[in-house]
Amino acid sequence: MQINVALLGLGNIGSGVFRVLQRQQEALLERENVVVQIKRVLVRDVNKPRSVQVERSLLTDRVEDILEDPTIDIVAEFMGGVEPARTYLVQALNRGMTVVTANKAVVACCWEELDEAARKSGAGLYYEASVAGGIPVIGTFNRSLQANKILEVMGIVNGTTNAILTNMSERGWSYEAALADAQAKGYAEPDPSMDVGGQDAVYKLSILASLAFGQRIRIEDIHCEGITTITPEDIAFGKSLGLTLKLLAIGRVEEGRLQVRVHPTFIPDGHPIASVRRAYNAVFLHGDAIGHAMLYGRGAGDLPTASAIVSDIVMAAKNAGKHEHPAFLLGREQDALPLEKNWLTACYVHLLVNDTPGALASIAGVMGKYGVSLATVNQISRNTPVPLVLVTHPARELSIQAAMAEIQELEAVDRVVNVIRVEKEG
Amino acid sequence: MQINVALLGLGNIGSGVFRVLQRQQEALLERENVVVQIKRVLVRDVNKPRSVQVERSLLTDRVEDILEDPTIDIVAEFMGGVEPARTYLVQALNRGMTVVTANKAVVACCWEELDEAARKSGAGLYYEASVAGGIPVIGTFNRSLQANKILEVMGIVNGTTNAILTNMSERGWSYEAALADAQAKGYAEPDPSMDVGGQDAVYKLSILASLAFGQRIRIEDIHCEGITTITPEDIAFGKSLGLTLKLLAIGRVEEGRLQVRVHPTFIPDGHPIASVRRAYNAVFLHGDAIGHAMLYGRGAGDLPTASAIVSDIVMAAKNAGKHEHPAFLLGREQDALPLEKNWLTACYVHLLVNDTPGALASIAGVMGKYGVSLATVNQISRNTPVPLVLVTHPARELSIQAAMAEIQELEAVDRVVNVIRVEKEG
Repeated sequence: MQINVALLGLGNIGSGVFRVLQRQQEALLERENVVVQIKRVLVRDVNKPRSVQVERSLLTDRVEDILEDPTIDIVAEFMGGVEPARTYLVQALNRGMTVVTANKAVVACCWEELDEAARKSGAGLYYEASVAGGIPVIGTFNRSLQANKILEVMGIVNGTTNAILTNMSERGWSYEAALADAQAKGYAEPDPSMDVGGQDAVYKLSILASLAFGQRIRIEDIHCEGITTITPEDIAFGKSLGLTLKLLAIGRVEEGRLQVRVHPTFIPDGHPIASVRRAYNAVFLHGDAIGHAMLYGRGAGDLPTASAIVSDIVMAAKNAGKHEHPAFLLGREQDALPLEKNWLTACYVHLLVNDTPGALASIAGVMGKYGVSLATVNQISRNTPVPLVLVTHPARELSIQAAMAEIQELEAVDRVVNVIRVEKEG
Repeated sequence: MQINVALLGLGNIGSGVFRVLQRQQEALLERENVVVQIKRVLVRDVNKPRSVQVERSLLTDRVEDILEDPTIDIVAEFMGGVEPARTYLVQALNRGMTVVTANKAVVACCWEELDEAARKSGAGLYYEASVAGGIPVIGTFNRSLQANKILEVMGIVNGTTNAILTNMSERGWSYEAALADAQAKGYAEPDPSMDVGGQDAVYKLSILASLAFGQRIRIEDIHCEGITTITPEDIAFGKSLGLTLKLLAIGRVEEGRLQVRVHPTFIPDGHPIASVRRAYNAVFLHGDAIGHAMLYGRGAGDLPTASAIVSDIVMAAKNAGKHEHPAFLLGREQDALPLEKNWLTACYVHLLVNDTPGALASIAGVMGKYGVSLATVNQISRNTPVPLVLVTHPARELSIQAAMAEIQELEAVDRVVNVIRVEKEG
């Protein structure tokens, strides 16, 4: 079976798709009975020199050359960003072309619109590469966990921040130094705010949690905090308590309500996700039948992402005429769990306090007033102001926030350096 | 779409399948448009009390009641062992019934026969639950890694031995004590030889490596060593060298040849698979596009296994009329890589030597004669005989064996306690 594909974009990922298809051509024919033919490639500048050998005649800077070509079966998109991807993909789907995309933003933000266009024309919509690069998390949720009610997903889905946190943890670097290193090595963008601010993880959690829990989670539903205020001291203090700091994307069902949140999180060193280092990604999950499981691998990069894209192309080719669409996008919202913002969480609290008698008593008093009890208290040194690290027992998010607002105003307290949520053993 | 299923077996796993189907009935209909109906259950004793509520009329002790029932679409088997499973499954496939099985032995040993029967009648053959319980390793190889040439798989695929090794490592228990504990807790069989001898892992590697490398790996192709001679001292000495001991099932392409082996292995503590504790399983893999990846989860147990079985049932229902069969089973053996028994490996060598001058020189001399060079040498104590731990650089397996045979005969050597292969950082 021959499948004609057009690529939107020929940067790193597009070139990776070319290379993977060249290498695997024979195996795809023998094992899958599929021949993938690249028919057209949309680029900005058809004359720019390319790292892959592409016939000049395949290149075009006019999207119409693709959208109006009736021989094209699949449009594979990796331009990134909502526009113009959204416009192009909706047009392609309207014309019955199946879409394979690595673009988390367009799926997270315009999923209903894309899905509706796909359903109407009978085209397929595939997006394995949009979350966690090469790791087949979408396929696992869609095709291997049907027998499970998912209770939790917990992901390291942004490699840039994980590489930064790994260097802060293992080398004691400051956030600024680790970020500069990531930028120098090309892991981090010149403007790194989407990564370090957590928004990139929010896009991915929106897709992942929607599939895991079978209800549409929009990006604005997700609580988001980035890693920009984390200090090497926080990481070191956590380490002395047996905790590893990660930027986690968490979706969790508790007491019949759904929490969706992205924030820096301390997890016990023994948790499987704690050992995920450098730019690797991982998705830890809890299903009521499978129990705890984890998928681990490269969350970005040309070839890992191309691995997911080519897998989607092969899957789409085989599903021709009977593509599936998630039931939850039809908006059966009466079945949806309500969202919970006032979740239960333990917290690590890093304070600088003045060395006055009764300082701890006044802090503990405010905590107690809001029903937050302390699990451990550590005075880190005898410097003034004195660094004090508290770890609370699980308490309501809003109670902790209220307590912290009041503690900040205490005379004994010089400054609240950081408040970081703490996860229990997995 | 209603699917009529017959179960062969109603022990732990069969009961798990019942429970999972009950819980997920509604979700399977809503999300997958599939209604799974259990029509018949083969048991040894229809009068035995059961932990799940099953209508008495569903039970039968006559397999003909299932094989001759034309309304049954799928036969799900979890009896274990080659016979009578093989006979029943071949008959079911011959009659066009699709088979879903958790039985590693019957797939590993009789794959060609089952596959041929399935192809002839157009039935499907599904076996996700046969390797690593609930973890979707088969689905990942078949449906997500098509764009990859697999260079390596490295699995902890036997939970019993991993639980034993975890207790030996973390609690300093002897092999015998750890085994007795596993038996008391029901992890290990009264006759544990299939697990601790490595044969269970051989079955699973046979299936896994065949799919990963696209060529049929038979159980007799696989080198097998168990964990019965491992001592807590070996584990402790390894730990002091930054190494963790695991029973690994390894498949690897090197120099155009394929290695398939199951044996105790030291891996660096930082390797993702080193952190897999207790009865958990994991499969680490290296693909030329995806890079390094790992799947982790419960490798056994009623509900995790049922998760995989029900997923296969749903998949089989959707694939009705167009089931896929691995191309390599058609025996295109001219494409197959030759097997390599003389692989390159580093080794940990634990000796007891007599406290004579020149002991180390004579040992190093023999190593050198066979081209095996030493990376580290540690004398562990001043007891007599002296425990000596050597770690070699990578050398040919047969050279190491020849060197060890000669070292054993040296006057300076009291005893070779253990030789354990060492893997490099992943």
